[in-house]
Amino acid sequence: MKQQEILIKFPDGKEKRYPAGITLAEIAQSISLGLKKKSAGGRVNGVLVDLNRSIGENASIELLEVKSAKGIEMMRHSAAHILAQAVKRLYGKVHLGVGPVIENGFYYDLDLEKNISESELQQIEKEMKKIIAENLPIQREEISRDQAKALFAEDPLKIALIDDIPENEKLSIYRQGEFFDLCRGPHLPSTGMVKCFKLTHVSGAYWRGDSNNKMLQRVYGVAFPSKEALDEHFVFIDEAQKRNHRKLGNELELFMFSEEAPGMPFYLNNGQKIRNELEFFLRQLQNSYDYEEVRTPIMMNRKLWEQSGHWDHYKDNMYFSEVDDQSFALKPMNCPGHMLIFKNKLHSYRDLPIRMAEFGQVHRHEFSGALNGMLRVRTFCQDDAHIFVTPAQIEEEIKSALKLIDRVYSTFGFQYEIELSTRPDDYMGEEALWDKAEESLKNVLDQLGYHFTINEGDGAFYGPKIDIHIKDALKRSHQCATVQLDFQMPEKFDLHYIDENNAKVRPVVIHRAVFGSIDRFLGILIEHFAGAFPAWLAPLQVSVIPVSIQHHREYSQKVVDYLKQEGIRVEFDSREEKMGYKMREAQLKKTPYILVIGDNEMKNGSVNVRRYSDKDSIEQNLEEFITELKLAVSNKKL
Amino acid sequence: MKQQEILIKFPDGKEKRYPAGITLAEIAQSISLGLKKKSAGGRVNGVLVDLNRSIGENASIELLEVKSAKGIEMMRHSAAHILAQAVKRLYGKVHLGVGPVIENGFYYDLDLEKNISESELQQIEKEMKKIIAENLPIQREEISRDQAKALFAEDPLKIALIDDIPENEKLSIYRQGEFFDLCRGPHLPSTGMVKCFKLTHVSGAYWRGDSNNKMLQRVYGVAFPSKEALDEHFVFIDEAQKRNHRKLGNELELFMFSEEAPGMPFYLNNGQKIRNELEFFLRQLQNSYDYEEVRTPIMMNRKLWEQSGHWDHYKDNMYFSEVDDQSFALKPMNCPGHMLIFKNKLHSYRDLPIRMAEFGQVHRHEFSGALNGMLRVRTFCQDDAHIFVTPAQIEEEIKSALKLIDRVYSTFGFQYEIELSTRPDDYMGEEALWDKAEESLKNVLDQLGYHFTINEGDGAFYGPKIDIHIKDALKRSHQCATVQLDFQMPEKFDLHYIDENNAKVRPVVIHRAVFGSIDRFLGILIEHFAGAFPAWLAPLQVSVIPVSIQHHREYSQKVVDYLKQEGIRVEFDSREEKMGYKMREAQLKKTPYILVIGDNEMKNGSVNVRRYSDKDSIEQNLEEFITELKLAVSNKKL
Repeated sequence: MKQQEILIKFPDGKEKRYPAGITLAEIAQSISLGLKKKSAGGRVNGVLVDLNRSIGENASIELLEVKSAKGIEMMRHSAAHILAQAVKRLYGKVHLGVGPVIENGFYYDLDLEKNISESELQQIEKEMKKIIAENLPIQREEISRDQAKALFAEDPLKIALIDDIPENEKLSIYRQGEFFDLCRGPHLPSTGMVKCFKLTHVSGAYWRGDSNNKMLQRVYGVAFPSKEALDEHFVFIDEAQKRNHRKLGNELELFMFSEEAPGMPFYLNNGQKIRNELEFFLRQLQNSYDYEEVRTPIMMNRKLWEQSGHWDHYKDNMYFSEVDDQSFALKPMNCPGHMLIFKNKLHSYRDLPIRMAEFGQVHRHEFSGALNGMLRVRTFCQDDAHIFVTPAQIEEEIKSALKLIDRVYSTFGFQYEIELSTRPDDYMGEEALWDKAEESLKNVLDQLGYHFTINEGDGAFYGPKIDIHIKDALKRSHQCATVQLDFQMPEKFDLHYIDENNAKVRPVVIHRAVFGSIDRFLGILIEHFAGAFPAWLAPLQVSVIPVSIQHHREYSQKVVDYLKQEGIRVEFDSREEKMGYKMREAQLKKTPYILVIGDNEMKNGSVNVRRYSDKDSIEQNLEEFITELKLAVSNKKL
Repeated sequence: MKQQEILIKFPDGKEKRYPAGITLAEIAQSISLGLKKKSAGGRVNGVLVDLNRSIGENASIELLEVKSAKGIEMMRHSAAHILAQAVKRLYGKVHLGVGPVIENGFYYDLDLEKNISESELQQIEKEMKKIIAENLPIQREEISRDQAKALFAEDPLKIALIDDIPENEKLSIYRQGEFFDLCRGPHLPSTGMVKCFKLTHVSGAYWRGDSNNKMLQRVYGVAFPSKEALDEHFVFIDEAQKRNHRKLGNELELFMFSEEAPGMPFYLNNGQKIRNELEFFLRQLQNSYDYEEVRTPIMMNRKLWEQSGHWDHYKDNMYFSEVDDQSFALKPMNCPGHMLIFKNKLHSYRDLPIRMAEFGQVHRHEFSGALNGMLRVRTFCQDDAHIFVTPAQIEEEIKSALKLIDRVYSTFGFQYEIELSTRPDDYMGEEALWDKAEESLKNVLDQLGYHFTINEGDGAFYGPKIDIHIKDALKRSHQCATVQLDFQMPEKFDLHYIDENNAKVRPVVIHRAVFGSIDRFLGILIEHFAGAFPAWLAPLQVSVIPVSIQHHREYSQKVVDYLKQEGIRVEFDSREEKMGYKMREAQLKKTPYILVIGDNEMKNGSVNVRRYSDKDSIEQNLEEFITELKLAVSNKKL
């Protein structure tokens, strides 16, 4: 009997006939051996499968290389199995928990008597490399629930996992040599395809994340498709650690935290100086864009939060207090306060747009485990604005907000990406208004020549929005600015203005934030600049160091006084320490300019300038240096 | 039998013999008829009595003129009786409540069926004048409790008052003509001595201030010893009303309040601009005095407030919230946060003094009845500083704080008075330290050439303090700045620094505030300047008004753009309204400079300047005007 043929369709649209039952690996090999060698797995009719999966019917297929995103995921998953196999080989009796893929790598939760120390990770790595060298085929088997229970009879953790799998779901195991594991897959075809990995650390983890359960040992590793990518990863980790804002915040004395107020930053003087500069910068800019700054109370009546809808949607993240037997909430957002201000006065269409801005301190509850330095706090200052507009003004005002945002971000050297989120399923308001609003946002983005992605259905229920993601110096993405249209808040607060025909009309509200949270933005800036702030932001701009404190004190003091008088943040290091020691300290503090004062400088009325980024110093006329520095500050030079 | 003689001693030390039983009036007449006529009453052995009181034994006496402080009080008290007498004459059946002396005048609480309207006050005044013209002698009678109850049998309010007088206290009534009233006195000798009075208004008042009781009618009046003083009072009232910060705050759109947050100010854009200038001004000044600005959380753990002592002494004025099932308090003061910052780092004596400043938003509960615009709020921003010093640095730092305060107050044209408060009975800490500290404060005040009064025993339990009372344009006194030594807080937080001998030593803390509350200070400033702020503070500095919007729009716009570019807060009034109307509006907004632009100005490249305080305008070269204005702003010219 002639073997049945099936039709295989490739991603480029080409079709080819193969015998039924052929595997993806065989198809790859039929094209080239090289292709087979670099394939990790594939998709059959869109479903992710092993490379050795056989195909019984006509199908569209796609082969996935190990270096593709999905291929890397499969490799990391297989690396987790290899880790478990190595531990079993080394330590004998081990109960296995779960071993998932995570960002950059994988982990496995292990229950074994021996405590795995960091130093033993090397031994495990060695064993893993052996298993990779053995190039064991990795094979999938579908089994029944009873078979699975018999197979894992001595592994109580796996039994618990099996019990949790829905009755109607198929069970599968993956085998490699003597090792097998309960697993959905897919996996690489063989262990030899895992090449570049490293175990990074071990930590405790409760079984299933429940602190009532046993504490297991979680071994973490990373894996990449090339040595270069692995090395790059460690360079990145190293750089990220050096730039860690909590570490730098401590070293540079920018801020502190206290157990008396978890998640609530204390700004030390250096941090407060930067914070003040950030606030001042945006305030000036907002002034030039005709914003009106206001300031509203931290606490307001519960009734108000019920009216605004925060009570219904946000109360679990809010803090409450009693005032005269009434319930008050600490504001998590500034909107309701601004609505009250708008309502305080009759408005004509001539008054619009009204751009109401506030540097508002908000409080939002976060679980203590979620807190992360300045990046995730329980109270922060939001650079919030609400722009009250007529429908005809939406485009112009969105454009103006985006220009302002661009102006701010480019000042810090941030690249950014734009996302437009449109009408969700549970949207409120008129469909026509939504259509028009989404069209307006697209128009504006097009007119400004922005590339943007659209998140269909991801807008807020009250209106579509534009989110802006900045990329920091390490190419990490942070969502900071947002521009949101709101048709609901004006309804809820019954806002109106009087139009040209003397009729009462609802304004539209644009919510807008640039920094988002000044506190979080500062955290991002610290990491972005690695603590070496540009002169305009640096808490200390200039450190003056005399070569000899006896001989050069007087002239140094003159220089310091002059700089101070010119509004420059300067410090005179007049301690009885060696000059080299002082210079190293000033370097560690990342002071933008170190001025060394010796005989030459005294004689010439000059200063010897060493910029933070430069290795060499140059002698400069004092006036000239001041002019240059003041220009760098006023231009916010990077 | 010869009449017995007694020895009367006068305030100047002179002594004279008089027959026993002589009255103060007779003694006055024995000196001169004029003296008798202008005497309201007197003191016998320091006790205040009627002028007709007879003296049975040797005594020191003092005669009090009607125009003396105590004489005025007696006159106001008698005026209250005359008011009650007049009402009884006019309306017949009236039950009388209480009729005390208050600031500038008096009131009487009346229970009568007729509703007294403001217009009927004139009729009552007329009747009062009649009673004054009758010049009825006012006579004291001491009576028994039973007599009193019989006398007032038909007056249930008075019976209630009699029941409240302690058993052992003597009762007295005062009679004038047909009228008598239960009263301790003293009073003027006759109704004719009350001259300059006026009834001002009537309002409802619960009997004995209890809202469960009947509502009575309270008629208010003022009384002064001369027509001039009465007139002056009304000028003052008028001026104070014009300057009322709540009224001006509303008219000039500086701030608002909402029932959603009683006692918690909402700053409108104009108010926020002033607030920002005030904060910026003090920040700059503090920088030049080497302060370190910090920022601490609004909420902190209850434990911290227990440690600081606020829990014991202040919890009734604090707001609380739950965070992760722990009690947190909204800070009523910034001290504990600053102590935590000090403690965050090891300090050497070389680091001191550390001047830690914060613009800290604090919350303190006040009864709703006590709230008064910006002058009494539930949340305000305190310009707080804590200066950590060695004992040897106390004098120098107090001096520096006082200089800073002087610098700030003189900028606003405030005169001020200084009070030094010393060790109270319940003081804590070593006596020697207190002695030294008080001596230091006196030294500093003397060295700076300040006149000051001493409030013995009025210091805080934790240290002596200097309070500063500013006088506003209406000569009203407001306590704003304070400089306090604190020996306790460093104990409670176990603060220390390492001294020259490597020993741990407690620092001393100086609490210091200049504005006190920025919010309250703004309220005072509004009344002080009657809303006409100096240019540096004015929310809007310049209003540009074209003579003809058709002809002068372009040049006006140029002027506006130029001013904006120079950082001046300017508005272009380009509405289609008459020039005169616009100018009146700008005047009402108390804009410091109005620039009128007509043909002349266009031709000459000039502006026509009208200063707020001037009646006339002058033509000025644009550049020249800008230079002048910028100088006024940078010099903070009044």
